[in-house]
Amino acid sequence: MVKVLIVFFSRSGNTAKMAELVKQGVESAGAEAVMKEAEEATADDMLNAGGIIMGSPTYYGLPAAEIKQLLDESVRHHGKLEGKAGGAFSSAANIGGGNETTIMAILQAMLIHGMVIPGTSKGDHYGPVSIGAPDGRVEKQCVALGKRVAELAIKLS
Amino acid sequence: MVKVLIVFFSRSGNTAKMAELVKQGVESAGAEAVMKEAEEATADDMLNAGGIIMGSPTYYGLPAAEIKQLLDESVRHHGKLEGKAGGAFSSAANIGGGNETTIMAILQAMLIHGMVIPGTSKGDHYGPVSIGAPDGRVEKQCVALGKRVAELAIKLS
Amino acid sequence: MVKVLIVFFSRSGNTAKMAELVKQGVESAGAEAVMKEAEEATADDMLNAGGIIMGSPTYYGLPAAEIKQLLDESVRHHGKLEGKAGGAFSSAANIGGGNETTIMAILQAMLIHGMVIPGTSKGDHYGPVSIGAPDGRVEKQCVALGKRVAELAIKLS
Amino acid sequence: MVKVLIVFFSRSGNTAKMAELVKQGVESAGAEAVMKEAEEATADDMLNAGGIIMGSPTYYGLPAAEIKQLLDESVRHHGKLEGKAGGAFSSAANIGGGNETTIMAILQAMLIHGMVIPGTSKGDHYGPVSIGAPDGRVEKQCVALGKRVAELAIKLS
Repeated sequence: MVKVLIVFFSRSGNTAKMAELVKQGVESAGAEAVMKEAEEATADDMLNAGGIIMGSPTYYGLPAAEIKQLLDESVRHHGKLEGKAGGAFSSAANIGGGNETTIMAILQAMLIHGMVIPGTSKGDHYGPVSIGAPDGRVEKQCVALGKRVAELAIKLS
Repeated sequence: MVKVLIVFFSRSGNTAKMAELVKQGVESAGAEAVMKEAEEATADDMLNAGGIIMGSPTYYGLPAAEIKQLLDESVRHHGKLEGKAGGAFSSAANIGGGNETTIMAILQAMLIHGMVIPGTSKGDHYGPVSIGAPDGRVEKQCVALGKRVAELAIKLS
Repeated sequence: MVKVLIVFFSRSGNTAKMAELVKQGVESAGAEAVMKEAEEATADDMLNAGGIIMGSPTYYGLPAAEIKQLLDESVRHHGKLEGKAGGAFSSAANIGGGNETTIMAILQAMLIHGMVIPGTSKGDHYGPVSIGAPDGRVEKQCVALGKRVAELAIKLS
Repeated sequence: MVKVLIVFFSRSGNTAKMAELVKQGVESAGAEAVMKEAEEATADDMLNAGGIIMGSPTYYGLPAAEIKQLLDESVRHHGKLEGKAGGAFSSAANIGGGNETTIMAILQAMLIHGMVIPGTSKGDHYGPVSIGAPDGRVEKQCVALGKRVAELAIKLS
């Protein structure tokens, strides 16, 4: 069974709620979801998954330092994450507050690992954005992200 | 009197409404606002202004081709726009739909011209984003953008 | 046989040379390469391909207006490009001149179409960048891009 | 005398060398340069400067976690950095390796603080990029960055 790692950092709880929704999407596609908070996740967790999804609050238009720390550590597996499926999501305080650039920052790091990123033509194109707590729109987008990345991970495995 | 050029492209009318609000902000700072639709604006208009603000709908996470056309033409004044104040705004169909990357794309082009970009710590940090027609929040953000860029243009002139 | 469309815009000839190298990579993976200059390509060409690779000179940190024009036109097939493999490359006058942001701009548009983007852990991570005419390094990167996108298009078809 | 803070993170020494060159540029403009490594810099250092320049190696297309940590901590002065001049630079292992996106990531964070960013029409438009150790081109770009940000900080103070 293909594993999809969901790594998130959450202080207010909004990103954690999004992670739970992403998990539902991963499982609906028939993959196993592994949830880890950023502080407890290691580069080995990334190595052992077929897909990796990262979520972070929007801190100055970028992922939290805790997420960046994990990405920096992952350099010791550089080259070995090639071909894994990837995705990202973010919660933010307000519209236009840097949420898209936070998601794109994570996706750029994944591209540099040689990972494979699926966009979507419907809704939050780069990845789900929640303004405050997740509402109905965000719920759908998070489930769709989990499903999309898991399905791609299965296809590529 | 310092001139601030406001160039916009608008099909639905939402970006045009935002441009009108930006104009109010420019005038409130004591600068002259010059409004042009992208198709009628020329690189010379850019040369003759102390500040330049560009607005576009979000088309595939980037400004409309009509805005890009003007930026491409502006290469004949490359180096002469150095030190001018710059800003950008965008209307979009949905949250997370590429609005921030549209604004950042315009700002990147302006940085390459050597222009000077002021952000804001309040609200739409890179520039105003309207989801559909401008509401109260967007109105404030647009007026603030016009004021911010005009004030900087006056200081730098 | 899976088709991979290579659309490019080239004035100096550097981007055209890169496109030829990308074509070799596509063919080495056992896919059919279809080459089109941006001005003659249509949204229908995008619809008929299993993979799409776009190349542009770096004009103000973004793809040329001619490439953007094609992306804007492709909205009439919005949703139908979902799941196609995508990639991008750029030629530039100098290092740090906006080449990476040009490539990322194209990739963002592709993500909004729901396309699937493979990065690489080796070399030009987002896509090949040529500073002036393509040298040996760029040749390898371009061939690798064509191969990578074609292989993904075959897997996903 | 206007102070310009230069914060950098450097493991190989390349980013530290760039920081020294940026310092020369700051001083040539008649401002005081304050140099700090990221681990010893605090948000208070940012508050006390008229201009802030940040340098980082390119780690997965983004600044090092140590730089991000400082940006995250700076939230306790959110709003008080408004109007300060800002700039960024990066060293990278290879062309197309994520150096421009590293610089843009720092600049985005600065825009969210309401800082003011000057681009340049000559050379490394967003900020200096060194591929390996700084060569003659990079030296000029670093000195020019320091000068540009210091001059803007003086004008805006």
